Amino acid sequence: MLKKIVIFGVGLIGGSFALALRKAGAVEQIVGVGRTAASLLRAKELGIIDVISTSLEESLKNADLVLLALPVAQTEATLAAIKPYLQKNTIVTDAGSIKGEVVLAARLALGDKVGQFVPGHPIAGLESTGPDAAIADLYVGKKVVLTPLSENSAEQVATVQQAWQQCGAVIHQLTPENHDAVFAAVSHLPHLLAYALVDDIANREHADLLFQYAASGFRDFTRIAGSSPEMWRDISLTNQDAILTELDAYIAQLTRLRSQLADGNGEAIHAMFSNAQRARHNWQRSIETAEVQPKQDGNE
Amino acid sequence: MLKKIVIFGVGLIGGSFALALRKAGAVEQIVGVGRTAASLLRAKELGIIDVISTSLEESLKNADLVLLALPVAQTEATLAAIKPYLQKNTIVTDAGSIKGEVVLAARLALGDKVGQFVPGHPIAGLESTGPDAAIADLYVGKKVVLTPLSENSAEQVATVQQAWQQCGAVIHQLTPENHDAVFAAVSHLPHLLAYALVDDIANREHADLLFQYAASGFRDFTRIAGSSPEMWRDISLTNQDAILTELDAYIAQLTRLRSQLADGNGEAIHAMFSNAQRARHNWQRSIETAEVQPKQDGNE
Repeated sequence: MLKKIVIFGVGLIGGSFALALRKAGAVEQIVGVGRTAASLLRAKELGIIDVISTSLEESLKNADLVLLALPVAQTEATLAAIKPYLQKNTIVTDAGSIKGEVVLAARLALGDKVGQFVPGHPIAGLESTGPDAAIADLYVGKKVVLTPLSENSAEQVATVQQAWQQCGAVIHQLTPENHDAVFAAVSHLPHLLAYALVDDIANREHADLLFQYAASGFRDFTRIAGSSPEMWRDISLTNQDAILTELDAYIAQLTRLRSQLADGNGEAIHAMFSNAQRARHNWQRSIETAEVQPKQDGNE
Repeated sequence: MLKKIVIFGVGLIGGSFALALRKAGAVEQIVGVGRTAASLLRAKELGIIDVISTSLEESLKNADLVLLALPVAQTEATLAAIKPYLQKNTIVTDAGSIKGEVVLAARLALGDKVGQFVPGHPIAGLESTGPDAAIADLYVGKKVVLTPLSENSAEQVATVQQAWQQCGAVIHQLTPENHDAVFAAVSHLPHLLAYALVDDIANREHADLLFQYAASGFRDFTRIAGSSPEMWRDISLTNQDAILTELDAYIAQLTRLRSQLADGNGEAIHAMFSNAQRARHNWQRSIETAEVQPKQDGNE
């Protein structure tokens, strides 16, 4: 049982974490810290938090766990503000979708207290944001990737792991570097590709005509282009090297496909499409199998 | 009321057309023509067709309307086989997703009877295929694009238009060239991009690790990479010029984004992402508005 947790950012991610722990009966008191009074008041109204923080010192006193559910760019400043009041037994974690930069920021801000910081990334989200979007089962059956530091003790990692497990999540571990390379390929690149396509079409003279005939394939392909431009600009700049590597590989792949098409090489095109279709089907099957499992666990 | 229609290909597209017309009480007899006896028997069992064709001459006798719901590559051979038995009052249409090549094939196969052919493209589909996938309301509120020929009379076009309207569809008209350019941008290119991404990831040494962390953004972005490789190879080769134009524009767009990212130009990246997000939201809203409308019409 966690006696007190402090959540920085009471929106979808932080708010759902709070609701999930509360539903699991895993926490006594939840303190909310945020930039706008309106969000905090709303979070309190919704039962996400018990207390709105008015003093960092007071909020951090005897806290078991602190979650940063903020844009990655705010990590260093937030940790620096926390540091003076960070007691020995408090563990800090985050929910940032980039880990290399977060680890760097934590080392700069926390110095010799960095061992108390266990970086994490819940692979869950919706397009909606804010406290009203928070739901208690957002993390049920979802992955949370922890990227522990050499300075973390096994107990410190276990505290964060248990909290996420109580939210129904499945815990994975990667190094920060592997984490960022993996997500550059399967998340960041697709976002850039979707933005690039919609921007390209929107800038055409006959954009209206084109959009008029866009159908369900286009809808799903471009859904992620509806995501926050600020957030994805920050992710792009923060994970720049890994994303550039992925972009280069993809441009090379498209250039190959382009010359196969220009040559009328149906066999090569068919080979690429079949390989992709097979891989996509296998992936979909494995996801469906995996997603059934944790939901059953969650009901136990 | 159509007395007799003949459907070549009793799968999702042809079968749904039959079921929709039957539901609307708009047809007396439906004859099915297909490559496999199994599909035809199943279509008859499901009430999609009344009669399995055993002779083209017999099937086409006194037919009001013929629908080709076959791969585009089979258009010319099918129309050539029909021609000897094609009576003056029979209208032929198709459901191919490319129109330039279909028109060419129709001119070659039908010669002086080409005026009886009214090309069409229903913008509806599911990933499932075959007679079992057919549903009566597949076309409700969906667009059907007709690309009439100069040889078509207004009555001939009206026959096809009315049949689709009775299926609940909304009729649009484009020239074959405009049709193919529009769909290269909003449908064919996204399919190629999705196939290319999944193939690229599947060929990596650590493909399993990458797929393991792919989540809902990846799932939607790559859904269309689950489509038939044969169909999309044929579409790629058949609409080669328009798709090459789109691929070149997209590679240029990605190259711009790549250099903005390499330069750390957050402002330019944000401008592209915001423009895309705005356009995506506007499009989504317009689609949602449009999709409510025809369903109400369909209930009248």
